Amino acid sequence: MTIETLSTNRSHGGTQGVYKHKSTTTGTDMTFAVFVPDHEEGAKLPVLWYLSGLTCTHANVMEKGEYRAACAEHGIIFVAPDTSPRGPASNGDVVPDDPEAAWDFGLGAGFYVDATEEPWAANYRMRSYVEDELPSLVLREFAAADMTRQGITGHSMGGHGALTVALRTPDRFKSVSAFSPIVAPLQCPWGEKALGNYLGDDREAWRVYDACALIEGGARVPDLLVDQGAADNFLAEQLKTELLVEACERAGQKAEIRMQRGYDHSYYFISTFLGEHVAWHAARLKA
Amino acid sequence: MTIETLSTNRSHGGTQGVYKHKSTTTGTDMTFAVFVPDHEEGAKLPVLWYLSGLTCTHANVMEKGEYRAACAEHGIIFVAPDTSPRGPASNGDVVPDDPEAAWDFGLGAGFYVDATEEPWAANYRMRSYVEDELPSLVLREFAAADMTRQGITGHSMGGHGALTVALRTPDRFKSVSAFSPIVAPLQCPWGEKALGNYLGDDREAWRVYDACALIEGGARVPDLLVDQGAADNFLAEQLKTELLVEACERAGQKAEIRMQRGYDHSYYFISTFLGEHVAWHAARLKA
Repeated sequence: MTIETLSTNRSHGGTQGVYKHKSTTTGTDMTFAVFVPDHEEGAKLPVLWYLSGLTCTHANVMEKGEYRAACAEHGIIFVAPDTSPRGPASNGDVVPDDPEAAWDFGLGAGFYVDATEEPWAANYRMRSYVEDELPSLVLREFAAADMTRQGITGHSMGGHGALTVALRTPDRFKSVSAFSPIVAPLQCPWGEKALGNYLGDDREAWRVYDACALIEGGARVPDLLVDQGAADNFLAEQLKTELLVEACERAGQKAEIRMQRGYDHSYYFISTFLGEHVAWHAARLKA
Repeated sequence: MTIETLSTNRSHGGTQGVYKHKSTTTGTDMTFAVFVPDHEEGAKLPVLWYLSGLTCTHANVMEKGEYRAACAEHGIIFVAPDTSPRGPASNGDVVPDDPEAAWDFGLGAGFYVDATEEPWAANYRMRSYVEDELPSLVLREFAAADMTRQGITGHSMGGHGALTVALRTPDRFKSVSAFSPIVAPLQCPWGEKALGNYLGDDREAWRVYDACALIEGGARVPDLLVDQGAADNFLAEQLKTELLVEACERAGQKAEIRMQRGYDHSYYFISTFLGEHVAWHAARLKA
């Protein structure tokens, strides 16, 4: 397997690249973005994953996230995958989308799960993609990537992704944070729609994709930083930050969960705090 | 005259807004973006203008420029106008575009001139718009804007705009900088096409829209900071930074013109150095 370089741009004393590869996991081409700060020959840098939210590709955070200055300062590689499989499958099939082309399910809305229901199961395998295939690819293709020092963060659906991936595979990550995460997909319309379609009616099978349920079931991470805009339109119905606060308190999970007054769900919010998250991860990845 | 607020988002401890108004100068609706850092009641903040390049609207720098952290830190209001009139004129006429819809002339390519040729003269009056109408509007609508302390910068066509506006009206600006400016429109294809169409065949009339010609003619600014990517595809044929270096040397115009190795013409370049430019302007605006 090889990767194709779609673009590279020098930025903030490093290289912002966009790459494409044929994914065996999703059965489609997949695109992802990687920022590598300048470094000495042979140096190894920690890797911070950023999982994006509904409707996004790799490009949203790459263009609007304002993470490169902090990554260059702290010597952190930043990897941003896409949020779902897209356009044609390797066998020529069309990747299925929401029948009504809604933006909260299907294309751009993989929810970081391995689908078990048809017609999704063939392509919608974003859990295995971000847990297994893409880390292996990054290890092989980016010589500076130190996969013994990984952190993970994400926004909204990607905040859900970051929390659940880290809670299921805590040994892989030294640090985990999130922006505006969907903390309990079992208890919100976005989650119920996505998990119901991808996984079927057995809600027990959903619990490995629900941060609050995982914590309730005993999963732990060393520490947790969450920023949530207090003026976020999705807070009350979809994100429900208070459920994560309660789950962490009940379980004794160390967590700093900050309500940011006046901030909404947009990249104007994320970009305000992403540099601070990078520094927070760096402190843990370089400890 | 009033302005309509299209959006506001809290970001980096301030408010990023987008506004629309009916311009009497261009005879169209015009959209612009303003970032106002949080400040004490009654405080007055310096204003930094950013003029954008070919094809851009107010949105490109707003989304990709990474200026808000520096503006908040230094207490600077940041104003980003559009690059041309668009959409229907007030009298119902269609605003004319390049006959071949090329991206280097017409819509998105006002070149910060007051057109004198038909069919452009009615709407393409971006010089008067950025020199007169929009500053008056900002003064009236943004109570914190201190118009006695203005700086100006811009990118590419907007770098040309920043340099020429400042060289023609030096009393208005305490500071001027540019990214990848078109330094001599009289001597490059983009400039010859735009100025020939907007102003007609008399090249003498073009000279007030050419930074090198203005400096040669005796115009001066107190100081000048220019960043230019050394890997910029447009450098040799369109931007011709060396002509500005020579003009400044011949004229004794104080200037720091930096060739940035490896950087291209994109916002990956601009965003790397825009925060530094904000700080450079702040030092002069608050002196």
